[in-house]
Amino acid sequence: MQHLQQLVIEAIEKSQFPATPTNLYDPIRYILTLGGKRVRPVLTLMAAELFGMQQMEEIIPAAKAVEFFHNFSLIHDDLMDKAPLRRGKTTVHEKWDANIAILSGDGLLVKAYEEISKCNPVYLPATLKILSKVAMEVCEGQQLDMDYEMRESLSMNEYLEMIRLKTSVLLGGALQLGAILSGADAQQQQLIYDFGENVGLAFQLQDDILDAYGDPDTFGKIVGGDIMINKKTFLLVKLMEVIAPADRPHMEQLLQSTVDTRPTKVADMLALYDKYEVRKSADELKDNYTQKAFEKMEALDVPKQRKEALLVLANSLLVRQQ
Amino acid sequence: MQHLQQLVIEAIEKSQFPATPTNLYDPIRYILTLGGKRVRPVLTLMAAELFGMQQMEEIIPAAKAVEFFHNFSLIHDDLMDKAPLRRGKTTVHEKWDANIAILSGDGLLVKAYEEISKCNPVYLPATLKILSKVAMEVCEGQQLDMDYEMRESLSMNEYLEMIRLKTSVLLGGALQLGAILSGADAQQQQLIYDFGENVGLAFQLQDDILDAYGDPDTFGKIVGGDIMINKKTFLLVKLMEVIAPADRPHMEQLLQSTVDTRPTKVADMLALYDKYEVRKSADELKDNYTQKAFEKMEALDVPKQRKEALLVLANSLLVRQQ
Repeated sequence: MQHLQQLVIEAIEKSQFPATPTNLYDPIRYILTLGGKRVRPVLTLMAAELFGMQQMEEIIPAAKAVEFFHNFSLIHDDLMDKAPLRRGKTTVHEKWDANIAILSGDGLLVKAYEEISKCNPVYLPATLKILSKVAMEVCEGQQLDMDYEMRESLSMNEYLEMIRLKTSVLLGGALQLGAILSGADAQQQQLIYDFGENVGLAFQLQDDILDAYGDPDTFGKIVGGDIMINKKTFLLVKLMEVIAPADRPHMEQLLQSTVDTRPTKVADMLALYDKYEVRKSADELKDNYTQKAFEKMEALDVPKQRKEALLVLANSLLVRQQ
Repeated sequence: MQHLQQLVIEAIEKSQFPATPTNLYDPIRYILTLGGKRVRPVLTLMAAELFGMQQMEEIIPAAKAVEFFHNFSLIHDDLMDKAPLRRGKTTVHEKWDANIAILSGDGLLVKAYEEISKCNPVYLPATLKILSKVAMEVCEGQQLDMDYEMRESLSMNEYLEMIRLKTSVLLGGALQLGAILSGADAQQQQLIYDFGENVGLAFQLQDDILDAYGDPDTFGKIVGGDIMINKKTFLLVKLMEVIAPADRPHMEQLLQSTVDTRPTKVADMLALYDKYEVRKSADELKDNYTQKAFEKMEALDVPKQRKEALLVLANSLLVRQQ
């Protein structure tokens, strides 16, 4: 995997964009050099290896397309969410401005399609279809996320569908692109897609759990950050679903408070989470998705040793870090 | 041409988008039903006819892609320019909000690529390449337009390159897509592209001229609107280039005034335009581009009668309406 990661990092670092207009291309260069683990494009290469592809240079354009698409969505999502930081650095709309974030994001989305069109033409209709399908779903997920922020309550099904669209389909799609370009058939494509989507769902649930229960020393963000801002995580959505009428006013009170008006907000909410065992539900569902991902991998019709790398990666993503 | 326009209008009206999330798809449905002459997608079909293509249904996806792309750029440009109206109707960011305009614009750009990927796969690498090239150039043009708004002065070359990118390359690209899908060779593609780009440049100059000299009864907007807001049109850029040092303070004074502080602002600026014959320069350059467009059409290696429709359309776009 490290070898493939190196390939991806090099390919992205070698990407050339015009010098001018600087306000269009500098933000694109900037976001692409903020780093990150490049998990999504690496998945594309790993799926290709899984299906026996050896010419990684044939897969690189699709991997770059996936990373360009992901970074386009980061620029626009950060703007829409008014996020000040991305990977510890100033976001594009903060470093430049909103208009520049809109337009450089647009440009990066176009560049994603420009990259994918360099793939083996035989598979171009199929790869384009998947990229566009995933792209629309990611847009739908972001829209639902914004819609749901305004809502008082949210069903668990709505929540799960939202995170599936917003974060998991791209993992599935990244893998499927690698499969397509290696000549995998429709059934195998579906299995590797499902593997990725389920890993993505499990990962997102883990993220929700870690935000509330993570080790402050190793968790990258402030533990309890989601609770502070009433973010609708699995834990909160579940609590709202199962809480007894008698405890509901207490929960509502917590939701209406801030850590300024109620310094114990995080601890008090955690006490409710404990009382209703919402973490247990989250752990169970996460295990469920993880299990399902492994079953899909099991069902794949490729030599067992080729599956090793993706299983190791999935395990490293989903290990209980708390 | 009316037959092709009808085909395009029907194809766009028949476009189906998912019902939900409504905040993502309603704005897409909305902008696509605001109407307009659909000149760009009609150009794609006309170019296909020009090169002898008879199965228009093979070209429709590319025509839709062009119109979807154009409407994506309208949504985002209107947001960036804070425009309240588009074709006399409320703009997307005004009717909904900025975030919804960003995301529905993104979605429409994805849909443009989804459409073009339905074209004849043989030509897919070529059509994708042109769509992405034109798309990046349109982004570059919009960025230059925003950059130049902040600048005090602008060279004529900078201005012409900006309008070429922002408005003309899409006309050329729309035609080239039709040519590609009809099997035209690279030379013929270049000629029809150049025809479109030159028509676009002439049309933009005409737009600049009409804003200052149009007939108030037939011109859709307020005559002098560009002058009121100091918009850097051909006329103003030219005036800044040729004005004598003795008249410069007067021009600067006009630029610093508004119609509130100086009700004669428009008339006074027009007097300067007259003194330095900037309209004459604009007319000459417009004629130049028109001439060049016709030469490119002349050079095209197709039966003369097939050229008729595009020449009629160009003439109708470029007729002196003032």
